[in-house]
Amino acid sequence: MPVVALLTDFGLSDPYVGQLKGVLLTGAPDALIIDLSHDIRPFDILQAAFYLSASAPHFPDNALFLSVVDPGVGTSRRLILVRKKNQMFLAPDNGILGLVTRQSGPTEVWELPLPVSDSVSRTFHGRDILAPAAARLCQGIRPGALGRSIPLESLVCHARAVPELNGQALAAHVLHQDRFGNLVTNLAIDPWLDRVQKSHAPLSLTVHEKHYPITLTTTYADIPAQRLGLIPGSQGFLELAVNQGNAATILERGPGDRIVFNLS
Amino acid sequence: MPVVALLTDFGLSDPYVGQLKGVLLTGAPDALIIDLSHDIRPFDILQAAFYLSASAPHFPDNALFLSVVDPGVGTSRRLILVRKKNQMFLAPDNGILGLVTRQSGPTEVWELPLPVSDSVSRTFHGRDILAPAAARLCQGIRPGALGRSIPLESLVCHARAVPELNGQALAAHVLHQDRFGNLVTNLAIDPWLDRVQKSHAPLSLTVHEKHYPITLTTTYADIPAQRLGLIPGSQGFLELAVNQGNAATILERGPGDRIVFNLS
Amino acid sequence: MPVVALLTDFGLSDPYVGQLKGVLLTGAPDALIIDLSHDIRPFDILQAAFYLSASAPHFPDNALFLSVVDPGVGTSRRLILVRKKNQMFLAPDNGILGLVTRQSGPTEVWELPLPVSDSVSRTFHGRDILAPAAARLCQGIRPGALGRSIPLESLVCHARAVPELNGQALAAHVLHQDRFGNLVTNLAIDPWLDRVQKSHAPLSLTVHEKHYPITLTTTYADIPAQRLGLIPGSQGFLELAVNQGNAATILERGPGDRIVFNLS
Repeated sequence: MPVVALLTDFGLSDPYVGQLKGVLLTGAPDALIIDLSHDIRPFDILQAAFYLSASAPHFPDNALFLSVVDPGVGTSRRLILVRKKNQMFLAPDNGILGLVTRQSGPTEVWELPLPVSDSVSRTFHGRDILAPAAARLCQGIRPGALGRSIPLESLVCHARAVPELNGQALAAHVLHQDRFGNLVTNLAIDPWLDRVQKSHAPLSLTVHEKHYPITLTTTYADIPAQRLGLIPGSQGFLELAVNQGNAATILERGPGDRIVFNLS
Repeated sequence: MPVVALLTDFGLSDPYVGQLKGVLLTGAPDALIIDLSHDIRPFDILQAAFYLSASAPHFPDNALFLSVVDPGVGTSRRLILVRKKNQMFLAPDNGILGLVTRQSGPTEVWELPLPVSDSVSRTFHGRDILAPAAARLCQGIRPGALGRSIPLESLVCHARAVPELNGQALAAHVLHQDRFGNLVTNLAIDPWLDRVQKSHAPLSLTVHEKHYPITLTTTYADIPAQRLGLIPGSQGFLELAVNQGNAATILERGPGDRIVFNLS
Repeated sequence: MPVVALLTDFGLSDPYVGQLKGVLLTGAPDALIIDLSHDIRPFDILQAAFYLSASAPHFPDNALFLSVVDPGVGTSRRLILVRKKNQMFLAPDNGILGLVTRQSGPTEVWELPLPVSDSVSRTFHGRDILAPAAARLCQGIRPGALGRSIPLESLVCHARAVPELNGQALAAHVLHQDRFGNLVTNLAIDPWLDRVQKSHAPLSLTVHEKHYPITLTTTYADIPAQRLGLIPGSQGFLELAVNQGNAATILERGPGDRIVFNLS
C-alpha cells in the first residue's frame, strides 16, 4: 500500500484536512494516509521545510509527502512534484522542499499544470489539485504524465534555509522552537558538527549586544547549569539548549530568527 | 475497505476518540478510519451539520459518517441512521444531519433502538451504541436489521440551518467562522449565488444599526480594500470576507449568529 | 492486520508523532496505526496509566500499545514489554503500566536491552528503540527474542495509582480531569462501587477544612443541584461530579491531587 504523509498549516479546527483525506481515498482507496503534522505555524514555509527534511528519512521508500503550506495560493506560484531516493513530494514551489532537495542524491522535478480558468476562489488547490495528483501517483501513474520536467535549479529558494559562513561569523537561522524552548538551527549535523568542532577557539554567540559562551556537547545533561549548549539533536540539526532552562526565552529568539555564532 | 469518517466535539485531550476507534476496529478490523474533525465547538450542532454537508461530497461513495455531537445524551433523543447517495450517516437525531438530508436525492432513515435500561451513566452512546452499529454496517449488515424505518420528515430540524427570504430581507445564519475570520453563511452556493446575482439593487447588510455595502465577487483579491465581500467559498456556501481583514471582528458576528442581507 | 495504538505526551506541534509512524510503517507496512492520544499532560505518568487502563478493554485482542511518556529518558530507566490477555504494551518502566498490570489475569514482562553507547542525545528512544521493537512484534517476532523475561513485581509502581483504606478514611487520587471539570478518581468501579455502597454512614469528603456531603448515584442528572456526586463513569472509575457545575473548580483539586473520603 502506498503511504501518503500529510503536512499542512490547516490545523484541525476546520474541515480541510478531512476533505483532503476524503479526496485521497476516493481516488486511491488503498492509500495509507499518515498525518505528519497539521500544526505548522500558518504560512511558515521554513518550519514545514524542516519537518519534511527531518522526517523523510524515517519514512518508507515508497512514501509520498503531500505538503500544503501555501501563502501564495491564488497567485501564479507553481505546483511541483519532486522525486528523491524513490520518495515523492508534492507541494507549492515556495521553498518548502528547499531542505529536502538540498540533501545528496539525484533529484527530479516536475511542474503540474494549473487549471486554465483559476479565477474562482472556490478552488482549494490542496484538495482540488494536489490531492487528486497524489491519488493518481498512488495508482501508479508516471510523474511525467502529471506534468512537465523542469530543472532543479529553477525551484524557489528560501533565504533562511541555509547557513552562511563569513570568516569566523557563522550566520544561522532558527527552523523550529520545540515546546521545551530548544531552538533547532539550520546547521545540519552533517557537515556542521565537524566544522564547529574543528574550530580552535571557544564557541559563542552575541544577541542584543550580550555575549553568550556556548558549550558544544552531545547530551542535554552535559550542559553546565544555566549555560547555553549546542547539541546534535534527534532531528538531524544542531540545537541550542539550556540545562533546566528555556533557550528561546533567554535569547529572545524564535522561529525564523537569525543567530550569528562566533567561531573564534 | 469501508471508510468510516469520525466527527465529534470530543477534542483530543480525553481518551474518548481512541476508544471509539478501538471499538470500531474490534468489530470491523478492515474498516478504514478517518478523522473528519474532533474540534467541533462543544455541542455546536450547526457547525457539525456544516462539516458533514461540506465534506461528504469529497468522500468515497461507500463512506459511513459517525457523528457524535450530542448535548441530549441521556435524554430520550433518538439515534438515527441516514442513507443518501450510498453514503451513510449515524448520529443523534438533533439536527446534525439537517444540511446533508436537505440536499437533493432520495434519503432513507432508520431509528436505532436504545438500551432498555439506560439509567446508568457509564453508558457512552458514541462508543457503546453508535460505534458497534457502525462496525456492523462495515461488516455488511443491512440498515433495516439495525433499526426501524422512519419518515425523513420526522427528523429534528435545526432552526438556524436554513436561510429565509422575506421580501428583500434575506435572513442567514453563520455556520462556521474560519481562522481568518471569514464567516461561512448558510447560503448554499446553489441556489443562492444565482438569486443574489439577479438582485437589481446593490447588496448590503445592517449590523448594530451600521450599514455595510457588500461586493459580490469570486475571489478574495477582488474585494476592494477594507470592504466586505460575499464569495462562493471552497466549502459550498457563500462566505463573508474582508480583503486583508477579519470579517468576524468587523461585524462582531460569529458562529450561530444571524445576519440579514438587504437585497435592494 | 496488527493494531498499534499510540499514547504519548508529544502533542501534535512537533514532528515526533509523524516520525514514530514513519518508523512503524517502514518496519511493519501492514500495521494499522491508531492514535489513542498525544495530549497527555507533559510527563504525567498517572494520566497515561489511566488512559491505557480505561482504553485497552475497548481495543482488539491483538492490539499493541506503544506508550511514550518518559521523563526519565536518558537515565538508566528500563524499557519494557508487557503481555496481558494477548494485548501487548511497550513503554518505559516508570509506572505507566501500573493500572493495566493491576487488572486480573496472567501478566508476562520482558526488559528490552538499551543501546550499549547511549550517550548521544540524538537518540530518541520512542522513535529509535520502541517503534522498531513494535514493528518487529507486528512482524511476528516472539517477545522473548526482543528481551529477557523479568518478574512483574520488579516493575516501578506509581505511588498515586492505588487508593488506600485506613479505617473509615479512603485516600484516593485524581487520575484525570475531563473538560467538564469532572474528576476521575483512582477508585475502580470494581471493587470500590460495592464497598462504598456498603458503607453504613453518609459519604463525605473534606478539602481545605471544608466538609462536603456526597451523593452516590448512577447518573449526572440524579445529583442534587449544586451538590457533589460520586458516579460510576464511562471510563471504569468512580468520578466526582457536580450537577451543572465544575467539581474541579469547587474542590480546587486537579490531576494527581489527593482526596480523602470519609466512609462514616
